[in-house]
This record gives sequence, C-alpha cells and structure tokens, in this order.
Amino acid sequence: MNNPVLVEVTRGPLVESRHRGAIAVVDAEGAAALTVGEVDEPIFPRSAVKALQALPLVASGAADELGLGDAELALACSSHSGEPAHTEAAASMLAKAGRDEATLECGCHWPFEVKAARALAERGERPSQLHNNCSGKHAGFVCLACASKVDPAGYVAPDHPVQETVRAALEEVTGATLTEDRRGVDGCSIPTYAMPLTCLAYGFARFGAGAHLSADYARAATRIRKAVAANPFMVAGTGRFDTRLMEGLGPRVFLKTGAEGVYCAALPELGLGVALKCEDGATRAAEAMMAAVIRRFLDLDERERTLLDGFAASPVKNWNKHDVGEIRTVGPLSA
Amino acid sequence: MNNPVLVEVTRGPLVESRHRGAIAVVDAEGAAALTVGEVDEPIFPRSAVKALQALPLVASGAADELGLGDAELALACSSHSGEPAHTEAAASMLAKAGRDEATLECGCHWPFEVKAARALAERGERPSQLHNNCSGKHAGFVCLACASKVDPAGYVAPDHPVQETVRAALEEVTGATLTEDRRGVDGCSIPTYAMPLTCLAYGFARFGAGAHLSADYARAATRIRKAVAANPFMVAGTGRFDTRLMEGLGPRVFLKTGAEGVYCAALPELGLGVALKCEDGATRAAEAMMAAVIRRFLDLDERERTLLDGFAASPVKNWNKHDVGEIRTVGPLSA
Repeated sequence: MNNPVLVEVTRGPLVESRHRGAIAVVDAEGAAALTVGEVDEPIFPRSAVKALQALPLVASGAADELGLGDAELALACSSHSGEPAHTEAAASMLAKAGRDEATLECGCHWPFEVKAARALAERGERPSQLHNNCSGKHAGFVCLACASKVDPAGYVAPDHPVQETVRAALEEVTGATLTEDRRGVDGCSIPTYAMPLTCLAYGFARFGAGAHLSADYARAATRIRKAVAANPFMVAGTGRFDTRLMEGLGPRVFLKTGAEGVYCAALPELGLGVALKCEDGATRAAEAMMAAVIRRFLDLDERERTLLDGFAASPVKNWNKHDVGEIRTVGPLSA
Repeated sequence: MNNPVLVEVTRGPLVESRHRGAIAVVDAEGAAALTVGEVDEPIFPRSAVKALQALPLVASGAADELGLGDAELALACSSHSGEPAHTEAAASMLAKAGRDEATLECGCHWPFEVKAARALAERGERPSQLHNNCSGKHAGFVCLACASKVDPAGYVAPDHPVQETVRAALEEVTGATLTEDRRGVDGCSIPTYAMPLTCLAYGFARFGAGAHLSADYARAATRIRKAVAANPFMVAGTGRFDTRLMEGLGPRVFLKTGAEGVYCAALPELGLGVALKCEDGATRAAEAMMAAVIRRFLDLDERERTLLDGFAASPVKNWNKHDVGEIRTVGPLSA
C-alpha cells in the first residue's frame, strides 16, 4: 500500500494524527478526472453502494407494486441513525410487504443518534432490528422478495435470489466481476464484494447520469436520486454529514457513506462519480476527503462553499467545547 | 512520515483497512531494545502519562496528608469508564481535599461504559464532571493544590503552580524539554506536551525500575505502580484493555492508554519502557500493537500468552455477533 497522507489532525502547533487514502473520480465513459493513491486495489464498499443495491427494488416494479413512497425509497438507501422517523418508515415498508420486524436478519444495535438512544433507555426499552442502521436496506430486500413471490427467509445469504439479483445489479452498474474470492460478510450480515475504487466511481457516474444503463435501471436510478434528494434526513439523520451536505447542495450531489472510511458520490451535472477510501477506516477523514473533492469539482456559490469548507477543515473540540485543533485536508486535497 | 503498517483489519479473504505506527522500547539507561518507525518525532502522549503526572501528588506528601488510599491513587492515573466505583472514588478524593465536583475543570461527558450510561439515562440524570474519564487525575490535581495551600481555581492553565509542577515532573522523568511550542490543550483542558516516543519509553523504563529518579520520585513511582497493580479496575473499567491486561499479568506490566492511538507501558522485571503511537490515532490498532510488544518481550506462561494472543489478533464481529474478520498485528510485530 502506498497511499498519500490526505488528512491531518492537528493539536495546538503540531500535527497529532495522519490519515492516508485513495480517491477515484471517473466519468460515465470510464475516463479518470482525478486519481489519488492506489485506486486499482479491491476495497469493500460496505454501505456506500446501498443506492445501487436498491436498483432492483425499483427496476423490478416491486416498489410500485407495494406502493413505497419517496421517504421509504430513501430509507432503503440509508445508514440511518435510528431516530423515530427512520424506524417508523422501516416498519411501514415491512407492513406493505405483509411482514414485520421479525423478518429482518440484520441484528440489533443501539441508535447512533444520542437522543434517540437516551429516549429508548429512559423508557426502559432495548433496541430492535428496526434501529439497526441498515434496517431500511433490509426492509427493501424483504419488499423485493415478497413482491417477487420469493420466500424472504435467509435473504442475507449470498445464494438467496435477492442477493444474486443485487450482485448482478452491482456487476452491471460498476463493470466489476464480483466473485466469491472477493466476498466478505457485512456488518448487517449480507455479502459485501470488494472492487477497485475506479469501478465504484464509474458505477456512480453512470448512476448519476443514467447513462449506459439499461432503460429499467436508468429510470430506477433517476427515481432513487430524486427520492433521496427530497429526503436527505432519511439517508442518515440529525447532524450527519450525508444529510447536511445533501440538504445544502440538493440534487447537485448524491452521496453515501460506508463503514471503514468509504465514501461514494455522484455529481450528475458533471457526469462524474466519486469513490474514496481512507486506508485506516476512519470516518472523520473520509468525510473531510469527500468535502474537499466536491469543493474541487463543483462550481459553488458562497453559501455552498462555506458549507463544504466547514467539512474539509473542521475544529477538534475538548470536553469544555473549546477548539484545540483541526481536522484538515492536505497534499493533493489542500484548498 | 514513514511509519510501517503494523496492524491489518481483514474481512473475509481480504485486508480491509491498515494502520501504521511507531514503537520505542528503551531501557532505563536510554538504550533502545526495539525501534519501529519514526520514534524521534514529537507526539502528544495525552492520557498515557497520567501516572507520571501523578508523581508530584505522592512525592510532595499530599497523598499521605489527605489520606488517599490505593484505589484513589489508581484513579488519579486513570482514564476511567465512568462506572459507579470510579465516580465514587473521585468524589471521595475531592471530599478529602475539602472540595467537591464544582472545583473540577475537566468538563462533562457520558460514561464510556454502556451500562453506566444507560443507568444514568434510565434515572433521567445527566453526566457530571465526575463521569469525565479524567476526573480522577483532576481530583488528584485538586488534592495536590489544596495540600500545598494553593488555590485550585484555574488549575488547568499551563502557568498554574499545579501544571508547572507536573510539567517539571514530566521533564525530569522523560528527559524531554517541554516548551510552549510543543504544547497543545488536552481533551480535559490541561496542557499536553509533545515529545518523542524514545523519551516517553525512557521515562516509563525509569518509572518502572525506579532507577535514575530522585529518592522522592522513586518512592512515589513504586507506590503508584503497586496501587495500580492492586486496582486495575480503577485505571479503566469493565472489559477495557488496560484493566484486563493488568488483571491478567499483575505487576509484571504497568500500562496506560492515551487518546489518538498512544500507549505507554513499563515492564519492571526487564527494566524496559514502551511507548507507541498509531499514526492515524486508532485505539483498536494501538491495543493490538501493545499486546504484540508485551508478548515479544515478556516470558509468558500459557494462560498469559493466550490472553495476549487474543488482543494481538482479535475478531471483527457483525451485529449478529458472527466473526467476519480479524484485527491482527503484521510486519515487524507478526507473531
């Protein structure tokens, strides 16, 4: 591995920690607009490809058949914070498929959002699978299975028809070959397939432009992008990077985080896709990197630039809320 | 920066993330027993030097004058998880100084330990400064001030007599020169001074051996090490690396974590000190690195080796609690 330092964390007069990473920005023809670091190494996209994994749900007609609304479609692409709007939409999706939370196979964890977690604890409750950040994606898988008259039981297994369909969609959109030797198990128990950042960026360029996709996938991509742009809260939650950036930039940016420092984005007006990975898996660095990449490529007004600048260089605060340092992009990503 | 990859995080058949770092193992004469990466670059030790920062509390006679017990001394060296035993001991230390929580200047945060945080929320309470992971160290500063007839107000400022005394202790033990141009503000608002890993390791070799220290500091170091060895729970908390390792290895190891991927340790029977930093600040990597270093240097029985092996290579689990990968030391630290 030979990735450059792209983010520094300072404290007082010194750099305290350093994050390395790789970035690919590619157009819908596969031509590179920016390449930093080792972009041809396979990486696990994790949750960053949820929108691509949701394509069959829409393209198959399942979403229309079950009457899923835009907020629910956005939730199908989310890594949400477990706030009430999120868990309610997940429960609603399952109900439309004639199912409930017991059909989910994602496992339980406490809500990422502190107030939602505290509220649960104050009521003496414990988190359910609906609070899992992936419950919307999983509810989408259950909807796809039920609308296709397939038993959803075991839908997380690589050889279940749902995961076979999802893998085929990922292959079609990214151009990558997703074989067993590149397969891991994701945090929510579904397969995750490693592919180069160049393939991921290419896939998101096509997802954003609707170009070079089958007619069904092109329509599905457009509908998913509109659903997310209209419901940025449903994709993440209170104070989260994805939500705040898409609230601020609207449909100019589609972006999605993945665990272990991955980010993918589409910049439809430029026909570009972005995929990046922080080598050590740190989210704080991946967010700063993505903010810097968007700032470099998009033509921004002052309000938008201020928003992006605040993420490409953000304060480190101590427990008394004083600024004691900075997380900032450097090297190829410096302003 | 040119630090080697020392820890890999795998998922399925592939490496998903990589952590680089630097390690210094030094004896009480300053001779290196192991050097990996850039050990001469200044790094902020953060909380890893709390035991050295507690030396004046004991050496000055303040701890004896106020009747601090071993559990309280251990808490003065802790980054604790905010569990009841921790907050009670912090309150007790303050009471012995004729003070209470209002004198603390560390700020508030929720307990690191999930059950303790949940219990607070279930009672409708909010965390106080006693729950701050540094409250024991701060209570120690207040004890030092009060026993020395110094007003503790503003004790976190670099020019307060308490911090002047603490800085002088760090300089004496580590041999480093700690000037303003290497000073940052720590998470708990006190100064943190950057120094090379070699100086930190040298300081911990002397702290562990009691060698080449003034008679007062040598006695204080011995008392602090014994207090911590007898109370490993007070230094961290339920399930934490420091607590589990010192419970398992007893006085053979003194170790302490610091924020942003720092670890320091003393191996008294070998007269060695250890200091390491994960370049990107990740705790998961710093713990694996420290486990591998201890495993390499100490002569271990089977039980001890099994304990260390479990930290030098530990499973990554998904939300359904299945093993999906591994965090493991590699390169210069491979088994």
